[in-house]
Amino acid sequence: MAVEGYTEIEYSVVDGIATIVLDREARMNAFTGQMCDELVAACDAIDADDAVRVLVVTGRGRAFCAGADLGEGGSTFDDRGREKAARYGEVDGVGRDRGGVVSLRFAALRVPVVAAVNGAAVGVGATMTLPMDVRVAGASARFGFVFARRGIVPEAASSWFLPRVVGISRAMEWAMTGRVFGAREALEGGLVSRVVPDEDLLDTAYALAREVVENTSSVSVALTRQMMWSMLSASSPWEAHALDSRAVLELGRDADAAEGVTAFLEKRPPAFPLRRTRDHTDIVPEWPARP
Amino acid sequence: MAVEGYTEIEYSVVDGIATIVLDREARMNAFTGQMCDELVAACDAIDADDAVRVLVVTGRGRAFCAGADLGEGGSTFDDRGREKAARYGEVDGVGRDRGGVVSLRFAALRVPVVAAVNGAAVGVGATMTLPMDVRVAGASARFGFVFARRGIVPEAASSWFLPRVVGISRAMEWAMTGRVFGAREALEGGLVSRVVPDEDLLDTAYALAREVVENTSSVSVALTRQMMWSMLSASSPWEAHALDSRAVLELGRDADAAEGVTAFLEKRPPAFPLRRTRDHTDIVPEWPARP
Amino acid sequence: MAVEGYTEIEYSVVDGIATIVLDREARMNAFTGQMCDELVAACDAIDADDAVRVLVVTGRGRAFCAGADLGEGGSTFDDRGREKAARYGEVDGVGRDRGGVVSLRFAALRVPVVAAVNGAAVGVGATMTLPMDVRVAGASARFGFVFARRGIVPEAASSWFLPRVVGISRAMEWAMTGRVFGAREALEGGLVSRVVPDEDLLDTAYALAREVVENTSSVSVALTRQMMWSMLSASSPWEAHALDSRAVLELGRDADAAEGVTAFLEKRPPAFPLRRTRDHTDIVPEWPARP
Repeated sequence: MAVEGYTEIEYSVVDGIATIVLDREARMNAFTGQMCDELVAACDAIDADDAVRVLVVTGRGRAFCAGADLGEGGSTFDDRGREKAARYGEVDGVGRDRGGVVSLRFAALRVPVVAAVNGAAVGVGATMTLPMDVRVAGASARFGFVFARRGIVPEAASSWFLPRVVGISRAMEWAMTGRVFGAREALEGGLVSRVVPDEDLLDTAYALAREVVENTSSVSVALTRQMMWSMLSASSPWEAHALDSRAVLELGRDADAAEGVTAFLEKRPPAFPLRRTRDHTDIVPEWPARP
Repeated sequence: MAVEGYTEIEYSVVDGIATIVLDREARMNAFTGQMCDELVAACDAIDADDAVRVLVVTGRGRAFCAGADLGEGGSTFDDRGREKAARYGEVDGVGRDRGGVVSLRFAALRVPVVAAVNGAAVGVGATMTLPMDVRVAGASARFGFVFARRGIVPEAASSWFLPRVVGISRAMEWAMTGRVFGAREALEGGLVSRVVPDEDLLDTAYALAREVVENTSSVSVALTRQMMWSMLSASSPWEAHALDSRAVLELGRDADAAEGVTAFLEKRPPAFPLRRTRDHTDIVPEWPARP
Repeated sequence: MAVEGYTEIEYSVVDGIATIVLDREARMNAFTGQMCDELVAACDAIDADDAVRVLVVTGRGRAFCAGADLGEGGSTFDDRGREKAARYGEVDGVGRDRGGVVSLRFAALRVPVVAAVNGAAVGVGATMTLPMDVRVAGASARFGFVFARRGIVPEAASSWFLPRVVGISRAMEWAMTGRVFGAREALEGGLVSRVVPDEDLLDTAYALAREVVENTSSVSVALTRQMMWSMLSASSPWEAHALDSRAVLELGRDADAAEGVTAFLEKRPPAFPLRRTRDHTDIVPEWPARP
C-alpha cells in the first residue's frame, strides 16, 4: 500500500485519498533536510496523479512533529560548514529556509490538504500545517510557535500564513510568548476547526476527505483552491470577478458542469469526467507567485 | 408601499429602511438574469435616494435564494447560443459573470446592507450575501458553496470575499466539500453574526437597521462603509491615515459633527443635516476599483 | 518608580515591563493633543531602552479612555483657528489626525503591547488599542466605535486596523451602528482575547507580559512583531519566505539561537545575550512604511 522509496515519511494512496505520515517516531518526527526532500517529492507525485483527490497529513506515534531536529544542540540553526540545500536555490541572495520550501510546496498543491494533528506540533511542526486547508486536532494535540524562545524568528513563511489563518492578535500572542498550548486553545483561536478524541482523529480527517472525493469535480476543486488562496493577495474583488467570469464560462460549457447539474437534478452521486492534471489547468495563474 | 416596475424582486422603503425581497417563491427565489437586472436597478435607486439609510435583503417564503435557476438542466451553465448580458460589458475579454455583477454592485452601495437569511442560501444565493455587511440567520437557514459539486467554481467574486469574511480555512472547508450546512455551523464559522428563531428574523434585522437610522449621520456611514471595505486592500495603514486625516478635517468643520457632539452632550437623539448624495462624496475613492 | 516629565500619562518600568497609565481621571482619561505627545514620547523612550521588553497600557480609575475630549462642545472636531500639531507634519496635504499619529507610533514599536481595558474605551480610546497586540478586558469594559454618531468617520487608521483584527463584518456592524457594547460582545467578536473580573485585570495583563520577559529573546520578538504586522500587506508568502530565510540564517549563527536551544535542552530558563536596540535591527524593513 505504501509507496516505496521514502525513509522519513510514509506515503500511500487509497480510494482517492493520499496520506503522508511523518515517520521518525524515535525523534518525535522531528524535521530534517531529508524529510523536507521527501515531502516535496510526495507533493510532486500527488500533483501528477489524478487518482489523488485529497491529502491527509499526520504523524507517527505520540507526536505530529516536534520541530527542527535539535540533535546538533546549540549549533542547530548555525548552517556554517554544512552542505547547502542547493537544490532549492536562493531567495534574495540567501539559501532558502527548508520550512519555507515545504510550506510553499503545500501551498501550491492542486488538491486540498487536511492536517490530522495527533500530538505535539511545535516549531516547523506547527508552521508547516498553516498552508494546509483544514486542521483537525486530537484531544492530546499541542501547538507552539516557539521561535522567540529559541532565539530565532517564525519561519516557513508563517509570518504571512499565521495572521491570515487565526488573525493578527492571536498570531502575535502565540508568537511573542512562544507558549506551547493545547487543543482547546487552538480551537478557540481558530487554528483548528475541531477537536476530537484521539481515537477518532483519523476517522474524522478521512470523513472530511471523503466528502471531497465523493461529491466534487477534481478540476473545480483544483481551481477553487488556487483562486481562494491567491485572492488573499488581490488588490480588488474585480480580480476575482475577472477570474471567475472566465472560469465559469469555460467550465460551464464542459462536461463536469453538465454532469454536476444533471446528477443533482437526478439525486444521484456525480461521476465527473474531467481530469485536474489536464483540463482547464491554465485558468488560474500559478500561486504562490514569486514576486 | 412597494415600488412598481419590479417582477422578480419586491422593493420598498419605509422609515429610512429599504427592503429587497427576492421574489420567485415557486422557484425558491432562484437567481436569473432578470433578477440580476432588478437588483442592480434597486441598488441604483437606493444610492440616489437620501430617504434610504440602510438596506435589508431577504427571500420570499421558505428559501432565501436556492442558487442559479437550474431550469435548463445540464446546460444551465453553458452560455452558447444565448443572448449575452451585454449591458454589463466584459472583464478581461469575457462577458461578466452575473453573480459578480450583483456582488460588486452591493459592494459599491453607499448604505450598509443587512441580509436576513430565512432559508436556503445556496450557490449564488450564498455568495451574493458576502458583500453585505451583516448576515443574520433564522434557525432554518441553510448555506452551501456548492460550486465544486456542480463542476464549476465559486463565482460572484466570492474567492475574494469569502476568505475575508470567514477566514481562509473555513472558506476552503466549505468550498472544497461543497457541503450544505445549517445556521449553527454558519454561526460558528463567522458567516452569520447571530441565529434567531425564524419568526424573529425580520424583527432582528430591522432592529439592527434602526440602530443605524436613529443614531448616525448618513454621510459618516457612507464614507465609513467605503473606507472599511477599501482598506482591506490597502498596502499600509498610512493609506487609512491619509484618508481619515482628510475626512476628519473636512467633516469636523461641518454641521453633522457639530450636531453629533451637541446631541451627545445634551443627551438627545441627533438630527443630522448633511445628505450622503451631496456632501463630502468625493473624500473616499470609488470602491471596488477596477484595477 | 514613575518616570518624571509626563502630565497626562504615567510612565514606569519594572522588571522588563513598561506601563503607561492614561491619567486624566477627572475627564475619564479623554484624549488630548498633550496626551498624544506624551504617548509618542513614551514610545520613543521604550524603543531606546533595552530594559523594556513589553508594554502594558491601561487607564486610571473607572475608564480606559472615553475618547476625544469634548470640552469644546459642538466645535470639538473643528480645527479652524487652532494651533496645528505641526510637529507631526502632513499626510497628503493635510495635518495628520492625532489618533493616527498615536496608532502608527504604537504599530512601529519594537516591543509587544498588551492593552488592559479597565472601563470605557470609546472613540479614539477604542481605536488606539487596535495596533496593540493583545487586548484583555475587565468585566466592566465597554467599547464603542462611535464616530458615525458624532458625524465624523473612524480615525486613527482604524479603517485599516479594525477589519484586520475582528473581520470585516464585525467591523462594519460596530462602525455602522456606532453602538457602545460590553466586554462579552467584544470577546465574541474577537476584539479582546479574554475577559476577567475587574480585580484580576492587571494581574492577567502582567502575567502575559511576564511570559514574554522570562522566556524569549528580545531580538526575536522585535523582529517577529515587525514581520507579522508587515506581512499583512505582503503580496505573496514569498515575501515572508525571503525575509525569514535571511533572518533564520543570521540569527541561527548568533548567540541567542545557541542559548535558546541549549537552555531548552538543559531544561533551564534562557539568558539571551543579544540586544534589540543593536543586533539584527536591519533585517526587517521599517513598518508601517509610508507609501
